[in-house]
Amino acid sequence: MQENKIIKLTVRDVRFPTSLEQHGSDAMHTDPDYSVAYVVLETDSDAALKGYGLTFTVGRGTEIVVCAVKALSTLVVGKTLKEIVSDFRGFYRLLSSDGQMRWVGPEKGVIQLATAAILNAVWDLWARVEGKPLWKLLVDMHLKQTMLKEGYPAYTTSCAWLGYTDQQLTQLCSEALAQGWTKFKVKVGADLQDDIRRCSLIRKLIGPNNTLMIDANQRWDVNEAITWVTKLAEFHPLWIEEPTCPDDVLGHASISKALAPLGIGVATGEQCHNRVMFKQFLQAAALQFVQIDSCRVGSVNENLAIILMAAKFNVPVCPHAGGVGLCELVQHLILFDYISVSASLNNRMCEYVDHLHEHFESPTIIRNAHYIPPKDPGYSCEMLEESVQKHQYPDGEVWRAIEQQGKQ
Amino acid sequence: MQENKIIKLTVRDVRFPTSLEQHGSDAMHTDPDYSVAYVVLETDSDAALKGYGLTFTVGRGTEIVVCAVKALSTLVVGKTLKEIVSDFRGFYRLLSSDGQMRWVGPEKGVIQLATAAILNAVWDLWARVEGKPLWKLLVDMHLKQTMLKEGYPAYTTSCAWLGYTDQQLTQLCSEALAQGWTKFKVKVGADLQDDIRRCSLIRKLIGPNNTLMIDANQRWDVNEAITWVTKLAEFHPLWIEEPTCPDDVLGHASISKALAPLGIGVATGEQCHNRVMFKQFLQAAALQFVQIDSCRVGSVNENLAIILMAAKFNVPVCPHAGGVGLCELVQHLILFDYISVSASLNNRMCEYVDHLHEHFESPTIIRNAHYIPPKDPGYSCEMLEESVQKHQYPDGEVWRAIEQQGKQ
Repeated sequence: MQENKIIKLTVRDVRFPTSLEQHGSDAMHTDPDYSVAYVVLETDSDAALKGYGLTFTVGRGTEIVVCAVKALSTLVVGKTLKEIVSDFRGFYRLLSSDGQMRWVGPEKGVIQLATAAILNAVWDLWARVEGKPLWKLLVDMHLKQTMLKEGYPAYTTSCAWLGYTDQQLTQLCSEALAQGWTKFKVKVGADLQDDIRRCSLIRKLIGPNNTLMIDANQRWDVNEAITWVTKLAEFHPLWIEEPTCPDDVLGHASISKALAPLGIGVATGEQCHNRVMFKQFLQAAALQFVQIDSCRVGSVNENLAIILMAAKFNVPVCPHAGGVGLCELVQHLILFDYISVSASLNNRMCEYVDHLHEHFESPTIIRNAHYIPPKDPGYSCEMLEESVQKHQYPDGEVWRAIEQQGKQ
Repeated sequence: MQENKIIKLTVRDVRFPTSLEQHGSDAMHTDPDYSVAYVVLETDSDAALKGYGLTFTVGRGTEIVVCAVKALSTLVVGKTLKEIVSDFRGFYRLLSSDGQMRWVGPEKGVIQLATAAILNAVWDLWARVEGKPLWKLLVDMHLKQTMLKEGYPAYTTSCAWLGYTDQQLTQLCSEALAQGWTKFKVKVGADLQDDIRRCSLIRKLIGPNNTLMIDANQRWDVNEAITWVTKLAEFHPLWIEEPTCPDDVLGHASISKALAPLGIGVATGEQCHNRVMFKQFLQAAALQFVQIDSCRVGSVNENLAIILMAAKFNVPVCPHAGGVGLCELVQHLILFDYISVSASLNNRMCEYVDHLHEHFESPTIIRNAHYIPPKDPGYSCEMLEESVQKHQYPDGEVWRAIEQQGKQ
């Protein structure tokens, strides 16, 4: 391997005005503008190889993550890829345990999101240097033919955002069924009667044999979650996702225990801020589905630890995706999970949302409701330069136009 | 009450080069520059009343907290104090649950520190408007005479930072004994033989009847913590503080269980990021001393919730202090705890560190190892303008001088 010295790190605040059409709306995030802090690492390699990384945010606050990436950049620029990957644990700790900066985390919130964006770029760079897609770099062995032929099973969240009308639900759900989707997630948690009506509608549309999941996005208290979900049990959801505060480990354990007799599991993880929190959830039997996220925790490094812990506790990994780029990134991790760890598709699937893929150089490919393994080198983080320029906040043309309209 | 509209929020990055003399050094934070993100709220009140708030940091990363305060400021400026305090729960949720910004937390890390700095300023303003020190505003009742006469018992951390020599330990400890101190904390966790020597030295100096506590600042794994502390048991520490990762609730529970037969409790909290995490620790019997912090969680609001939970679980509150301004602020909360909640001094005391008080308008007063209740209106957050100007980062004269020396 060449040394591949990292000579420059740039970070940009890229936002998509998704709140205008209520895409992504849920009980807690009523007006998200899907956004990324977008990192590019430049190297001195002969081929001028770059590494692309990102973390996902939902609008305001992205500038804080950008500020944090800049603060961490001094720990990255000047290092060679070879140095980093030959002691990746040391490099990870350098980023997460800086004697001064760790105080503003540690390993949580803004600083962890910034760490994720940077490390995602490092992994992308490494995979490009090796000329492999990241998942292949990870599994480093012959492909399981199933994955190449059929892909990894996905479920869709695109049919039933909270802000959609019943007419939209019906249309989107019917279209998805026609495209071969068999697993559907519905946002719940704002109003019980609405939820009953929406779940009933979707269960009728998809029939008894397809899979339904529900997602409250942390809206409830512990007892409220149990009562509310019990009233939705007749629609046979496989899981309730994020029933309460993501830090309430023992609350999730109580909910799990109460809902087990109804055949409903608890799923969580997209806001679980590090591996130690996942350890709590697993040790306390507080979840039945581990939802890793490619951009919340410390990149591939920390997600590998979480995937291995989930295997040890015999709990399936069903990644969180959607957002901006989360599908592109996490597909690499779930392929690693299948090929190198679990070797099972039982109760396993990866979330899919059909927005914003057109902004990526190597967008996710879905065929018959399965993720088709990506073949381009890297971690699929690279965005189209035109998309980045248009959506850069606050000066890109999309945001200037919105500001202009607001002033009219 | 006048309306007291908040017309301006300023925030400054103020750092003290404490790493130069190893003050504050511990097993994880080897070179802290004690710092604050310092917030001033200006109002349109006749008396031009201001509110002062801060959160504590240890150097690099403070600029990220400043960035986060700026992002949150739009939710504060333009509001009146009357609006805020007449629905403080609503205002708290506005700050902590902004539909976009909560993604980069929620309620943890940088964004929670920024929330703390702003809310500390709001509480300071409120207490100034009422013409009372904050603790008096809180207890809003006749004073317990004990507090006014004797003050609240304190312990000192100033004698035994990790980077101090044995000679420094001996001198500082002897001086503290002469001043009436009876409770001492020692930093441990870097090297076992060093710890044995240092603990032995201090136990001999203070004798068998004074109190010794030890603090590892998260340095160990769970089993390592148990083994290591067992080897220090002969020095009879009252507690081991931060034995492992602050998110490892069940790990702390295991350590608590293992050390109970040795008469050593577990203390933690200074990096416990919100009330929900404290709930986990209390429910899991994972700590025996609750160490609230005035600047880590969401200000007085969240600390009141934690103090009340601790009372419900019958666990004493022994605040974390030191840093910059933490003693000044937390003394108000511990007075509230004594006067309005616990009414007990059993196993209760408040940390004290004798640095950086000279930068405050109303510095902490210690008499005979007790905190003397402050009488100035407000939450004791106001800093001397001269101190702020000198230490503002990176342009204050102290930092310019250090940079200059570095270049020589």
